[in-house]
Amino acid sequence: MKACGVIVEYNPFHNGHVYHVEQAKKASQADCIIAVMSGPFLQRGEPAIIDKFSRTKAALSNGVDIVVELPYPFAVQSSDLFAKGSILTLKELGITSLCFGSESGDTSHFIRSYHLFKEKRNQYQQTLKRHLADGASFPEASSLAYQQTNISTEEMDLTKPNNILGFSYVKTILDYNLSITPLTIKRSQSGYHDQSITGTIASATSIRKTLSNKNRLTTSITNAIPDATKLQIEEYKSKASLWHSWDHYFSYIHYRVLTLSLQELSLIQGVDEGLEHRLKKTARNVCSFNEWMEKLKTKRYTWTRLQRMFVHILTNTKKKEIDILSTPSKLPYVRILGFNRTGQAYIHQQKKQMEVPIIQKIGRHMHPMLEIEERASNAYYSILPPTNKITLRRQEINPPIQTK
Amino acid sequence: MKACGVIVEYNPFHNGHVYHVEQAKKASQADCIIAVMSGPFLQRGEPAIIDKFSRTKAALSNGVDIVVELPYPFAVQSSDLFAKGSILTLKELGITSLCFGSESGDTSHFIRSYHLFKEKRNQYQQTLKRHLADGASFPEASSLAYQQTNISTEEMDLTKPNNILGFSYVKTILDYNLSITPLTIKRSQSGYHDQSITGTIASATSIRKTLSNKNRLTTSITNAIPDATKLQIEEYKSKASLWHSWDHYFSYIHYRVLTLSLQELSLIQGVDEGLEHRLKKTARNVCSFNEWMEKLKTKRYTWTRLQRMFVHILTNTKKKEIDILSTPSKLPYVRILGFNRTGQAYIHQQKKQMEVPIIQKIGRHMHPMLEIEERASNAYYSILPPTNKITLRRQEINPPIQTK
Repeated sequence: MKACGVIVEYNPFHNGHVYHVEQAKKASQADCIIAVMSGPFLQRGEPAIIDKFSRTKAALSNGVDIVVELPYPFAVQSSDLFAKGSILTLKELGITSLCFGSESGDTSHFIRSYHLFKEKRNQYQQTLKRHLADGASFPEASSLAYQQTNISTEEMDLTKPNNILGFSYVKTILDYNLSITPLTIKRSQSGYHDQSITGTIASATSIRKTLSNKNRLTTSITNAIPDATKLQIEEYKSKASLWHSWDHYFSYIHYRVLTLSLQELSLIQGVDEGLEHRLKKTARNVCSFNEWMEKLKTKRYTWTRLQRMFVHILTNTKKKEIDILSTPSKLPYVRILGFNRTGQAYIHQQKKQMEVPIIQKIGRHMHPMLEIEERASNAYYSILPPTNKITLRRQEINPPIQTK
Repeated sequence: MKACGVIVEYNPFHNGHVYHVEQAKKASQADCIIAVMSGPFLQRGEPAIIDKFSRTKAALSNGVDIVVELPYPFAVQSSDLFAKGSILTLKELGITSLCFGSESGDTSHFIRSYHLFKEKRNQYQQTLKRHLADGASFPEASSLAYQQTNISTEEMDLTKPNNILGFSYVKTILDYNLSITPLTIKRSQSGYHDQSITGTIASATSIRKTLSNKNRLTTSITNAIPDATKLQIEEYKSKASLWHSWDHYFSYIHYRVLTLSLQELSLIQGVDEGLEHRLKKTARNVCSFNEWMEKLKTKRYTWTRLQRMFVHILTNTKKKEIDILSTPSKLPYVRILGFNRTGQAYIHQQKKQMEVPIIQKIGRHMHPMLEIEERASNAYYSILPPTNKITLRRQEINPPIQTK
């Protein structure tokens, strides 16, 4: 059996994802599609609207055969670490190809850009540093550096969000010299950041926005998602009483910031360059998450960067922990969130040759990485009514596995 | 001008407290009554039902001339440290007498017990240690040790709660060799722990219990409190939207315990002897504060001890902080919560000879003790709706001073 990997967040799983999985199967000719998925918190520093188990179930009903969790130290991170964690996870599971969507849509462009990048790496680093010193945010500085060193070209535009992510994947595969074939498919409809839904293919952003504004599943949403996602979104609300968004977490992060010392705050991942002082000062007069973000935001501190910092404050994640756990070029384990019969057969075949353990149930003796996952999950569910919390948290220890 | 000190919690200020203040004035012949009062959290490890500023106002309307705050490192503590912090605060303000209620009602009995205690201190310590080793809680072991060494006598029963507190006060005064005359008045009605209200004198416990059960001011409550307290209780609810109780804090302490590592938990004041493991384990399946307490409680871990621990978890107070701040025999400052004209005149007279600064408004550069006070206050108000929180927290920096 041959497997193709996909790197996803499924927040929520929609028709565009169905298309992606179909195309991945076609392009890779693989027997098994393995998705590595962010857990409770996402790359752009947001809580997932429904929990990872619900998102897993929707994916397994729509062509994905195995869902594994992207460990927290890589999930809420810039594209480089996000790519590293994802690729290393998929590598452990023995994928032979990786399929990702991009604006470019041509794999050879990514390979060419990689060689261009290797050639000009020093020049890129220097340009990046200069822009950072000028007060630009990292994404801005990086984008400018790609353009000014001509690593970004007309055929491979490295200012487009999916090209940037794809480039990180290809860079990781080639840097680690992995025998994984990168495959890309062109994203034709609906940009990453599109705000409104039109037709049956919509961005996850626009679906979340509509869901949050209307606080119900509208026809325009259900047109853009498969039935299994509709079911999971509905079921989650009945089990949890809400769909997650930053607003719900405001009182918890506010409480935490107000009861940590400056020194303790400065140890948290993402609280850099004296941000602890700004956090404490602004905390005195804020009434909502958005108000706080507006008060903190500057040219250098982008919305995404600040949201990631708030995730780490919420989950009490230290710089030291992230440093230790994200540095090695080998992951300590692979955590399975769910699989179908095909996935089960593939795991059975692959297990013997894997170099790290596969984890399904969480036992007593935990790796520091699992301890972070547990804290992140506890923080994620913290906003729910106590009884709902207990039921949903149990899945962490004993996840529901789908084999029908 | 001469001042007499009283050591209080006023949770809430009731008719028994009016009587105490009157008797203190009579017995001491002082011009000024100074109350040292716990702030947001009380000696038995509970949040005060209304905030310290509201309790201060009620006291100033009923014969108290100055209210000063008992610093947090002494407030949520066993009687010895509670007494130490209170007496040292009052000493800085130059009181010449201290008046406290007790079951005994005879000052000479306390003095005699102190000398008896000094004589038998070693014997007491050994007996105490033996009972602790046998698994008794500290209050139990201490009570048994007093009885078995005959320090507790028929005339001075050291198993009675107010006698124990009074004995701690007298012990502190005599140990530090302070020129403060202890005066005691007999508590005739309503024991410390009485649960129900009868007549115009009721225990604060019974008032709180009725308030919490009925969630309104009943006639039996208003019969037992002065008008100013009624007003403050009503006004606080309209400003804060609630009266504080442990139930409101459950989700915050639960969240904190679930997102701290075992090692971090073990640094918190009160998390002793491996309690961090019990905390983490029990946290998985609890839905309310009382349920959690029932699961944690043992012979050794009394309700009060566990409640104190939860206050320190809520306020993020470390053992190290308490050790450093509660050890010196001199306080860094005295913090005034309110005074009337008499109090103002007394402070004016006393100020020149005081060895430590008087603090009213909180400025920029803070003493570590004030930083803890600020955290405690933030934690106290954390459960309120955001806008109410902002208004009430402002009093911390710029307290309302009553001089009419």
